[in-house]
Amino acid sequence: MATATDARETTRVIGRPLLAEALGTGLLVATVVGSGIMAQQLAPDQILLQLLCNALATVAVLGLLIALLGPVSGAHINPAVTLVDALAGRLRASVAAGYILAQLVGGCAGTMLVHAMFGQELVQWTGQVRTGGGLWLGEVVATAGLLLVIRLFREGRAQLIAIGVPAWIFAAYFFTSSTSFANPAVTVGRALTGSFAGIAPASVPAFLLAQLVGAAIGVGIARLLRTGGE
Amino acid sequence: MATATDARETTRVIGRPLLAEALGTGLLVATVVGSGIMAQQLAPDQILLQLLCNALATVAVLGLLIALLGPVSGAHINPAVTLVDALAGRLRASVAAGYILAQLVGGCAGTMLVHAMFGQELVQWTGQVRTGGGLWLGEVVATAGLLLVIRLFREGRAQLIAIGVPAWIFAAYFFTSSTSFANPAVTVGRALTGSFAGIAPASVPAFLLAQLVGAAIGVGIARLLRTGGE
Amino acid sequence: MATATDARETTRVIGRPLLAEALGTGLLVATVVGSGIMAQQLAPDQILLQLLCNALATVAVLGLLIALLGPVSGAHINPAVTLVDALAGRLRASVAAGYILAQLVGGCAGTMLVHAMFGQELVQWTGQVRTGGGLWLGEVVATAGLLLVIRLFREGRAQLIAIGVPAWIFAAYFFTSSTSFANPAVTVGRALTGSFAGIAPASVPAFLLAQLVGAAIGVGIARLLRTGGE
Amino acid sequence: MATATDARETTRVIGRPLLAEALGTGLLVATVVGSGIMAQQLAPDQILLQLLCNALATVAVLGLLIALLGPVSGAHINPAVTLVDALAGRLRASVAAGYILAQLVGGCAGTMLVHAMFGQELVQWTGQVRTGGGLWLGEVVATAGLLLVIRLFREGRAQLIAIGVPAWIFAAYFFTSSTSFANPAVTVGRALTGSFAGIAPASVPAFLLAQLVGAAIGVGIARLLRTGGE
Repeated sequence: MATATDARETTRVIGRPLLAEALGTGLLVATVVGSGIMAQQLAPDQILLQLLCNALATVAVLGLLIALLGPVSGAHINPAVTLVDALAGRLRASVAAGYILAQLVGGCAGTMLVHAMFGQELVQWTGQVRTGGGLWLGEVVATAGLLLVIRLFREGRAQLIAIGVPAWIFAAYFFTSSTSFANPAVTVGRALTGSFAGIAPASVPAFLLAQLVGAAIGVGIARLLRTGGE
Repeated sequence: MATATDARETTRVIGRPLLAEALGTGLLVATVVGSGIMAQQLAPDQILLQLLCNALATVAVLGLLIALLGPVSGAHINPAVTLVDALAGRLRASVAAGYILAQLVGGCAGTMLVHAMFGQELVQWTGQVRTGGGLWLGEVVATAGLLLVIRLFREGRAQLIAIGVPAWIFAAYFFTSSTSFANPAVTVGRALTGSFAGIAPASVPAFLLAQLVGAAIGVGIARLLRTGGE
Repeated sequence: MATATDARETTRVIGRPLLAEALGTGLLVATVVGSGIMAQQLAPDQILLQLLCNALATVAVLGLLIALLGPVSGAHINPAVTLVDALAGRLRASVAAGYILAQLVGGCAGTMLVHAMFGQELVQWTGQVRTGGGLWLGEVVATAGLLLVIRLFREGRAQLIAIGVPAWIFAAYFFTSSTSFANPAVTVGRALTGSFAGIAPASVPAFLLAQLVGAAIGVGIARLLRTGGE
Repeated sequence: MATATDARETTRVIGRPLLAEALGTGLLVATVVGSGIMAQQLAPDQILLQLLCNALATVAVLGLLIALLGPVSGAHINPAVTLVDALAGRLRASVAAGYILAQLVGGCAGTMLVHAMFGQELVQWTGQVRTGGGLWLGEVVATAGLLLVIRLFREGRAQLIAIGVPAWIFAAYFFTSSTSFANPAVTVGRALTGSFAGIAPASVPAFLLAQLVGAAIGVGIARLLRTGGE
């Protein structure tokens, strides 16, 4: 009996962070994709206004999710963040694998939820090619900045991450050439929609690679800037 | 004499929260409806820009009201929040009934105040049908997220509710198919206007039902995520 | 010698708050009028977008000024706030008179500064009539809410005034029929510009009266809601 | 050996603030220029909406950079701020010179990074003349306000600088005639782009002069307003 309780307890302790990562990534992707569809439907010709609404909605929910789910799972909701933590030995490989799987599943579910709300096919493919050195550089910059923000604030000012990350992503939506995906799970989730926010599956691998390169650069710059030495 | 003073005191102790709930819901609905009318008048053809102004004004006042009236009544200003608290035994049924009545009265008064300001008929009916599985799912998602935010922050981080709720509602304005009513009193108040923000009376019951289902789901997810066990 | 030093000291102690009130009101009016001119020049036909930029710029500077100048003068930057404080005995009549004079002078100077920056006549008159029961009711609502926010937060949560006031004014820009002047010094300052933000001098007295009525109502509601009794 | 370690340590202690200033100014300029290009590409005819997106992205990253890099270098990211500190004896001349050089190098690199992301010539020249008394007055006002905000908050409320500065700059984007450059390094960086945010090299010197005059005025007003005497 005690064993059964223990097993249930273990499931719960492990399950909560995974649920948080799946739910958080799902709601993030749902906001990105859903606000894209809404914007496109209400103002088909106004691409800049679409991007503004898309960016504002996304960063509102992003900051909220980081604050809300931080105590449960750390609120990575981004495989690049998880991977970098695992490589730094802050997260066991098995846990990191679980996190990343939860994020990917959540991201795809988020897109499907949105399609259900808007009465569309649950899974769609798009021909919206996003490729080329300029866009990849955009993803490198966007993801490097993201990791820089997380790493610098994490030492003693962790509560600012929930403000700093959305501030960075909002700016990067506009100043990077790629409009800042900066998140492998979001990138995969966005590959399942034919809307404004979509990305052609063939464009995904290079985006993921650029994001990982950017994450490594961001961690490196943060190390150079950290006052506490290494 | 002492009895008269006591009675007055009792009235005051009970009356203040009810006044806060009526006033808060009234100002919330006034902002939703009034900013909708203003936006429609100034840019009749720009629906996405209308929605952006409508959403920004709404969440500005929503966060303010939660912070301002929290110490007086808890600042529910939403019958779904009150109902869920009553079912959890956190609020006596009689108080909950008073709250919900105050919210409904306030919500309707808010719409009428706006119509008076804009020189229109105080009560209007609209044919703006909002119906169908997609929209109902939107209301379920929007209200589930609202309760999730409230429940998770309430344990030890209650001051973040006044930021987290408007962040959620802002995102949900854009990413849910229904533009996120997520509040029975607001829904009823919006049934009395013929403007942009209106909803046909026949569409109201299903919206209310979807909101209550969503509230229950949100509470359930919050329970699964809560680190403190139950 | 000591007397001369004392006199200079007195001048300084009195002069600082007056400078703060003049400067604060001046920058507030400059933002309202200047962002109106900028918006009108860049998008003459897009009135809702003009209003959005106007409102965002205004509330950004409003919150900043309240936080910045609060320790110097209380950062009233609004004769309605000063008058209400004087009537409540919180401010001596002579000081209140000085504050209001400084606010009016600052407000007019703010408009003139903007006209100088945009290469226009320093003082302009406009035929933009703003009159009628609907608009006056708008001013009553906007100013009542403003005083309600100030009064409720002032008891123990004064640092929230710098967030709550701009949140209220932003919402009131959109949901009140008058776009929320809610400030006699701003109203007078806006009577000196022929731009988007202008108001015909003949429309000013009724606006001022409506603002004072609103201020009184706001104070009254705050008294009813205050948990600490009176 | 110890000497080599000391030398490396010294390099690190000096190098970190310089890296922070270069990186911060670079990301600030990158956001200004990059969001300008993005806005112009997506909505060529909508100048006010372009300015809104440009301003929002800029102040989001500006506030973030101040908070993020403050502990490393003080986060001046503006030669006017550094110069004023040096003149007040708060910074040694050699350090100030290093800061300003780092800011200028960073600012130029920021523009080039953006051009690389958008697949354009790394360095561009523009004929966008920005000249005349109105614009110069705009720069004086914008920079005066900036220094006023920094100086008043620095005494005991330094954590508000990261909120107050972006609030001021956002307002000044709209209410000053020059759209508020208010930063010599940003001005120089913007001289290297042919986009929306560009400024003709011939217009730069007068802008820099106006900014320095404004900085001096801002410091003077702050001294008058400071409650603690001097």
